[in-house]
Amino acid sequence: MSSVLLTGIGELVTNDPSLGDGGPLGVVTDAALVAEGGRVVWVGTAREAPPADAAQDVGGRAVIPGFVDSHSHLVFAGDRAAEFAARMSGQPYTAGGIRSTVAATRAATDEQLGATLTRLVAEMRRQGTTTVEVKSGYGLTVADEARSLALARRVTPETTYLGAHVVPPEYAEDAGAYVDLVTGPMLEACAPYARWVDAFCERGAFDVDQARAVLTAGMAAGLRPRLHANQLGHGPGVRLACELGAPAVDHCTYLDAADVEALASSGTVATLLPGVEFSTRQPYPDARALLDAGVTVALATDCNPGSSYTSSMPWCIATAVREMGMTPAEALWAATAGGARALERTDVGRLAPGARAHLAVLAAPSYLHLAYRPGVPLVAETWGD
Amino acid sequence: MSSVLLTGIGELVTNDPSLGDGGPLGVVTDAALVAEGGRVVWVGTAREAPPADAAQDVGGRAVIPGFVDSHSHLVFAGDRAAEFAARMSGQPYTAGGIRSTVAATRAATDEQLGATLTRLVAEMRRQGTTTVEVKSGYGLTVADEARSLALARRVTPETTYLGAHVVPPEYAEDAGAYVDLVTGPMLEACAPYARWVDAFCERGAFDVDQARAVLTAGMAAGLRPRLHANQLGHGPGVRLACELGAPAVDHCTYLDAADVEALASSGTVATLLPGVEFSTRQPYPDARALLDAGVTVALATDCNPGSSYTSSMPWCIATAVREMGMTPAEALWAATAGGARALERTDVGRLAPGARAHLAVLAAPSYLHLAYRPGVPLVAETWGD
Repeated sequence: MSSVLLTGIGELVTNDPSLGDGGPLGVVTDAALVAEGGRVVWVGTAREAPPADAAQDVGGRAVIPGFVDSHSHLVFAGDRAAEFAARMSGQPYTAGGIRSTVAATRAATDEQLGATLTRLVAEMRRQGTTTVEVKSGYGLTVADEARSLALARRVTPETTYLGAHVVPPEYAEDAGAYVDLVTGPMLEACAPYARWVDAFCERGAFDVDQARAVLTAGMAAGLRPRLHANQLGHGPGVRLACELGAPAVDHCTYLDAADVEALASSGTVATLLPGVEFSTRQPYPDARALLDAGVTVALATDCNPGSSYTSSMPWCIATAVREMGMTPAEALWAATAGGARALERTDVGRLAPGARAHLAVLAAPSYLHLAYRPGVPLVAETWGD
Repeated sequence: MSSVLLTGIGELVTNDPSLGDGGPLGVVTDAALVAEGGRVVWVGTAREAPPADAAQDVGGRAVIPGFVDSHSHLVFAGDRAAEFAARMSGQPYTAGGIRSTVAATRAATDEQLGATLTRLVAEMRRQGTTTVEVKSGYGLTVADEARSLALARRVTPETTYLGAHVVPPEYAEDAGAYVDLVTGPMLEACAPYARWVDAFCERGAFDVDQARAVLTAGMAAGLRPRLHANQLGHGPGVRLACELGAPAVDHCTYLDAADVEALASSGTVATLLPGVEFSTRQPYPDARALLDAGVTVALATDCNPGSSYTSSMPWCIATAVREMGMTPAEALWAATAGGARALERTDVGRLAPGARAHLAVLAAPSYLHLAYRPGVPLVAETWGD
């Protein structure tokens, strides 16, 4: 295995507080990094760098850990641009729009679904994302959920079984029977392709008892739990996730004091998805209040054709800083180390010896530019697997 | 001169209401376009396309007019990322921060200024911008303003003399003497390189009488007027611009009914700059109210290192749709045809026979994706001069 020295790094974000400036981002200035066999083997100042088999000078640019996008729905067909445009003219968002994507996804071939998935993962990669979680949830039959997860497994180990996304039309009169399917034959068919089990706990989707049944059945089948909760209104979803020891609960837009207390005391990561509030004109979640209460916060895209069709973690960072009260440092941490926590991963989201050499070289001297220069494509180069 | 046929266009935005769907965007579906000698010579449906010397099939992608970014400040040195980060932690924005960029700009060599300018114009081009206005205003001496405009003239014909950006420190006790300089020797030195004259009419910068003196002196020297006004609070700037027949007045964040009426009856374009409100945490201007009153609206980046360091017109469109009440169609029009109106240009901002073949091919089937997919780099290819 040959080693590579990345040098001339104006600002290296390690997310290791034992390094550099000693802050949460562990920022080393005038830095270098050595990678070997896909792993970071050394980080420090450029003048102390050891020799390596090859070298690349990035000319003073900033280097950050690759983004860890811990929430996406990339297995789908069709788009909903017209629905988006109508919503921007005043129509409200409801969970019901998901069903139009379900119909298109069921009608698509594996090749069509795989092509969209591959295109979006490549688009994310160009924007610095090196780890992405991908959910099923637009199939909602045993065969369509299983093929969705089999396709997702080709692009990431972080696959999530979301049979409980919405109740499909054919079960509209008998949601209980659909939950039986999700916790029975569908789970059995999907578990081999999934690491995670998830449910959409929300008015119009699944209630707290149904969500609990889905997550506990998935956990019994060896999957780790996560949950969509408190997106469209207050409810018991966040507390359910904390009670079940889920590593993450996602959305967290409408929280009361008991929810925040449950998050702070459980260690469950609150994954915030600013693309959803942007694209549905909902109020943004209050990241500041969560951070001040000691909650661990992650940022993710929720990339999906209905409620958030962004694939851009830099855009999520900029928006979280403007709209959710995060500092640029907190937002970057949430988009890297926070996502890793949400996925129970210790090998990504940081750039210290032993971690994967997953990184983004920015066309900028500082990570601050991710928020300072909104919308500008600032990722010059991405290193991933 | 050889002709080029661009075909396989899923959706062609012409901004010519006599074409296609007959709406303001003049959208032609399943379209083609022929360019020759840098001009559009034919547009229509692909099946009616005439033969050409060469052909390129864009595979169903959308094609739009290149963006016309009618307000930027690209001649500067240094960045203000730390000031941005501090502001995101609660510090207010004032016009005073401009002075730190003035000091850095005066200290920079022509080569340094030119390199930054070239880099930013290229960055804009990759994001679909084919016409950009560039202002002086960080020199504030006769020599530094003139060299700023000479540098800007190398990259665009749309150069704006903004000696009246702020009162420089050396004139802090005698703003009147500085206005005399701006309207006298500085104007004389700058006019050969400038098409436009501008002033920052705002508390902390120049009052309405000073702004009037600057614009009328510039107009007497053959320059066309434009104005920064009503950015940080209510004031007489917008009405001054309308009174002087300025083609555009920029910012328009704080407007009262008389301002809106003046804009509607004068034909002066209101150029809105959402990057500024994003980056200074100010409330966004109410584009919906302006449009409903019959005002012509343009969108621009205001790209500058202090109050708006975005270069992304797609991001401006997405933000205007989310925050300013514009439809995706209105926002795209404002970012193309609106910018052209603001610059009194009829050869850009549209794709009809006779116009320049300035266009962007999107990695998307519809222009709606510019707002539907915020932050995603969607410009696959740009054609400009």
